Amino acid sequence: MRQIQVVNSLAAAGHRVSIHGFSKRDRQDFHNGVHHCGCISGAVDFADIVILPLPYTLNNGESINAPFAGENLLLEDVISVIQPGKQLFAGKVDAQLTNLCAAAGINCVDYLEREELAVCNAVPTAEGAIEIAMRETPFTLHGSNCLCLGFGRIGKVLAKMLHGIGAKVSVAARKPSDISWISAYGYTPLNIKKMDDSIGDYDVVFNTVPQLLLDSNLLSKLKKNVLVVDLASKPGGVAFDIARELGIKVNWELSLPGRVAPQTAGKIISDTILNIINNQEV
Amino acid sequence: MRQIQVVNSLAAAGHRVSIHGFSKRDRQDFHNGVHHCGCISGAVDFADIVILPLPYTLNNGESINAPFAGENLLLEDVISVIQPGKQLFAGKVDAQLTNLCAAAGINCVDYLEREELAVCNAVPTAEGAIEIAMRETPFTLHGSNCLCLGFGRIGKVLAKMLHGIGAKVSVAARKPSDISWISAYGYTPLNIKKMDDSIGDYDVVFNTVPQLLLDSNLLSKLKKNVLVVDLASKPGGVAFDIARELGIKVNWELSLPGRVAPQTAGKIISDTILNIINNQEV
Amino acid sequence: MRQIQVVNSLAAAGHRVSIHGFSKRDRQDFHNGVHHCGCISGAVDFADIVILPLPYTLNNGESINAPFAGENLLLEDVISVIQPGKQLFAGKVDAQLTNLCAAAGINCVDYLEREELAVCNAVPTAEGAIEIAMRETPFTLHGSNCLCLGFGRIGKVLAKMLHGIGAKVSVAARKPSDISWISAYGYTPLNIKKMDDSIGDYDVVFNTVPQLLLDSNLLSKLKKNVLVVDLASKPGGVAFDIARELGIKVNWELSLPGRVAPQTAGKIISDTILNIINNQEV
Amino acid sequence: MRQIQVVNSLAAAGHRVSIHGFSKRDRQDFHNGVHHCGCISGAVDFADIVILPLPYTLNNGESINAPFAGENLLLEDVISVIQPGKQLFAGKVDAQLTNLCAAAGINCVDYLEREELAVCNAVPTAEGAIEIAMRETPFTLHGSNCLCLGFGRIGKVLAKMLHGIGAKVSVAARKPSDISWISAYGYTPLNIKKMDDSIGDYDVVFNTVPQLLLDSNLLSKLKKNVLVVDLASKPGGVAFDIARELGIKVNWELSLPGRVAPQTAGKIISDTILNIINNQEV
Repeated sequence: MRQIQVVNSLAAAGHRVSIHGFSKRDRQDFHNGVHHCGCISGAVDFADIVILPLPYTLNNGESINAPFAGENLLLEDVISVIQPGKQLFAGKVDAQLTNLCAAAGINCVDYLEREELAVCNAVPTAEGAIEIAMRETPFTLHGSNCLCLGFGRIGKVLAKMLHGIGAKVSVAARKPSDISWISAYGYTPLNIKKMDDSIGDYDVVFNTVPQLLLDSNLLSKLKKNVLVVDLASKPGGVAFDIARELGIKVNWELSLPGRVAPQTAGKIISDTILNIINNQEV
Repeated sequence: MRQIQVVNSLAAAGHRVSIHGFSKRDRQDFHNGVHHCGCISGAVDFADIVILPLPYTLNNGESINAPFAGENLLLEDVISVIQPGKQLFAGKVDAQLTNLCAAAGINCVDYLEREELAVCNAVPTAEGAIEIAMRETPFTLHGSNCLCLGFGRIGKVLAKMLHGIGAKVSVAARKPSDISWISAYGYTPLNIKKMDDSIGDYDVVFNTVPQLLLDSNLLSKLKKNVLVVDLASKPGGVAFDIARELGIKVNWELSLPGRVAPQTAGKIISDTILNIINNQEV
Repeated sequence: MRQIQVVNSLAAAGHRVSIHGFSKRDRQDFHNGVHHCGCISGAVDFADIVILPLPYTLNNGESINAPFAGENLLLEDVISVIQPGKQLFAGKVDAQLTNLCAAAGINCVDYLEREELAVCNAVPTAEGAIEIAMRETPFTLHGSNCLCLGFGRIGKVLAKMLHGIGAKVSVAARKPSDISWISAYGYTPLNIKKMDDSIGDYDVVFNTVPQLLLDSNLLSKLKKNVLVVDLASKPGGVAFDIARELGIKVNWELSLPGRVAPQTAGKIISDTILNIINNQEV
Repeated sequence: MRQIQVVNSLAAAGHRVSIHGFSKRDRQDFHNGVHHCGCISGAVDFADIVILPLPYTLNNGESINAPFAGENLLLEDVISVIQPGKQLFAGKVDAQLTNLCAAAGINCVDYLEREELAVCNAVPTAEGAIEIAMRETPFTLHGSNCLCLGFGRIGKVLAKMLHGIGAKVSVAARKPSDISWISAYGYTPLNIKKMDDSIGDYDVVFNTVPQLLLDSNLLSKLKKNVLVVDLASKPGGVAFDIARELGIKVNWELSLPGRVAPQTAGKIISDTILNIINNQEV
């Protein structure tokens, strides 16, 4: 659904879009004017830019992630039909793809590295985290004590939304300027290095920092019925084994935008690609 | 879990609480000092007030709703062991119970008729509606167009929460003073009798009015991919059959507090009972 | 400026408007098409409805409040030129005017009695109160402890705005259902009859209840540097003499809408008149 | 009042504070334990850190800004009595003071350069801007169209507060990531380089960017009755002469924290000094 939304948003913005590798069922969801091509070279030939799926390969790293294409589409073969000088858009571009593109004279752009995409993705991530917390707790977030660890992009949006539905929001951070921001936004600030005395007050703890913050010591001080939602990329921020031993409920949730709001996630990708095409400075 | 919370809150408020009919498993969740009685008269004898479960009878209307009691507990038998002059608390009290209590000289109180309980219940209802909308839509509520039909208790809390997570909120009502309130709270007001031109703008429609508002005409004007969440008690506010024919997704959700936040729902009941005991005026 | 806005809004809504008694200077601010009449009967003759200024008489109760008319315009004379069956709009209509209109067969409507006007007026009242509190205190409202006495129309809007700029908001009320609403909106509820222990915590106290709430006892427990803003109509809610003795700063502010936001106040009056004309039910 | 607050906050935090150069009247506002010294060396001798007033010199650049000292206190003389190795705190430290301190072996710290102080000061600045806008307009900010130019520290806090009192808030910025943030926070984003078509929609425009943004072209497109509040340091963001010619009301407001909320401003300075003393990293 995310890919379909990317296609439709670009078409809605007035671009001519050709597609390859979608299922018959999916095709009925496309905007009028989106052109389905039976072969990859047909789709690529007339295009100024080529957009790969996300992630762009399957586990083997060689085949394009296109389960409905009805054939095994090799990344190398796709690259080989793109004319030099064209732009290729993909997410989490690795060295292999970088090298392939360099060799073929193709301008490879990783849209996941754009700051505005990361900011926009904080919204579905935060909303997904709230959905999970609502589902996993027998109480309302409204009126509950919630703690966000970290005040980066996700922390900022998550704290705002939690506050907006009526939770009592604390945010833990390290830098004095972040502490000041947390107060300015009306949340209770917490020194992330001195949480021993207060960590036991919280009903839900959201972590956004990819560092072991909730170690054995802090885990042992949590409320018995707390919910921990870890949003941090690997290695996460929780001593998961110890949490399990202590009977603490931890949901480690990665890649939320594509899972909880694929349409929004697709729109964010297409908006970012349009920004890049239109030469918006960073 | 709702009942357990009622018991624990009353115990935490310093009252001596006896229980009967709970499972062994549940009993380990009770506060210290809560006294489990093997027989109903033992539980009732020392009590100044008696609280029935919610709903208080099973489908047959004769047996108490106590699936873990290990015996068939008849409503009539329970009433018969309560001394005259004592207070009995129950929800949705019907004529049969009223008569039983009158005959036995028991003061029967329906806590569901207290205004503060209805207000408090709007919170888990609204939060449950939001959880459902998050789960059932492929986009974020943040940035989406949401419409609330009705600006009563649930409408007020729901609009506030939706606004708080960043949705664009419209509220439809009839009275000019409600229209003024809707503007004062920063939502877009809509005349509930003139929604033809705008109803097609919304991504999610929440109904709180127990009247057929979304009839064939309005349903036919909704966005193709809209989600309708109907929170109104019977008969609901949607022509459900026609919605099904048109392929419109409708979630009719009743009794949300007990389902999505039983702990909060129990706390609300015990707070209300405490208000009544303490002679808080309405 | 309020009257000018009433005129302009009605003209902007497509009505033909004639005026009498405005100054030359004011006249340049009117919408095109507003017709200035040299004599009162000329202004009234073609009109379906007649709108008096607010207040409609000067202190003597006999002359129309029209300082720029260049003549003494008697209320009685104005009434005498209005044809029977027409509608006359005024605010705070007294028995004299009611009787005059009844005798003349004129349908006299007091727009100040409309609920939606009272709701709308809560907005400029609350905003005016906030402006005053900002001006009169050497600290920011953000982060300060604010208390609203009463949770009626003004209390609701004021609490929301204070919360919106980052104050810590408590609201005192009497009814359990209001206490529930105050919690539902995310403010700290206070029993208005038990404020002895907490009244000393507040930096600013706003009163909206026209009853002696801040008596000698409570005044003596206030913070030394507190600001009290009394928004209640006569007799107000403060023992003013005792406050003066204790050196407590009290601002008693009445009729704020016309003073702090005359344009908005005029728009509210014309919107209400349009609602009445268009037969909006209450 | 700002200086008094600095003194009192440090004393309240448990530090021993000596003062010199305050008026008799001021002295009664100090916390118990604050020690007034008749001569500067007495005040400095026992202190580990010395705090200068803000600004620290009068216009001549040589005398300390201490109008109530009853004598002309020279900056050079003050420096000369501070023992080497001690810390001196001041704001907007210039080359002269830097050199004096270096020569004397004193560790001179400019607290105005701390990021957390700048963040905290955004709060009284934004609140002051709102107070001014409320005072200078005949309409309520609630419901009005407000535009913030810039989304730095002040823009972020100002937009939040305006939104919180019910204004319709647009924010203009340049970077795509700022545009994303503006949307994430629920405001309407505007490309700061393409405001020609929309600038005429706003009732109040707040500028926070110290660059000529409101030039002749944009000024000519503003609403006739708009209010412009310029919060940018020199040279400001408005073609002031042209605005005057066009009859556009512009309030250029600098150094708001000390003017509208001296107590809060003092608290911010003392908090920052305490952070520095306590070795909080930046």
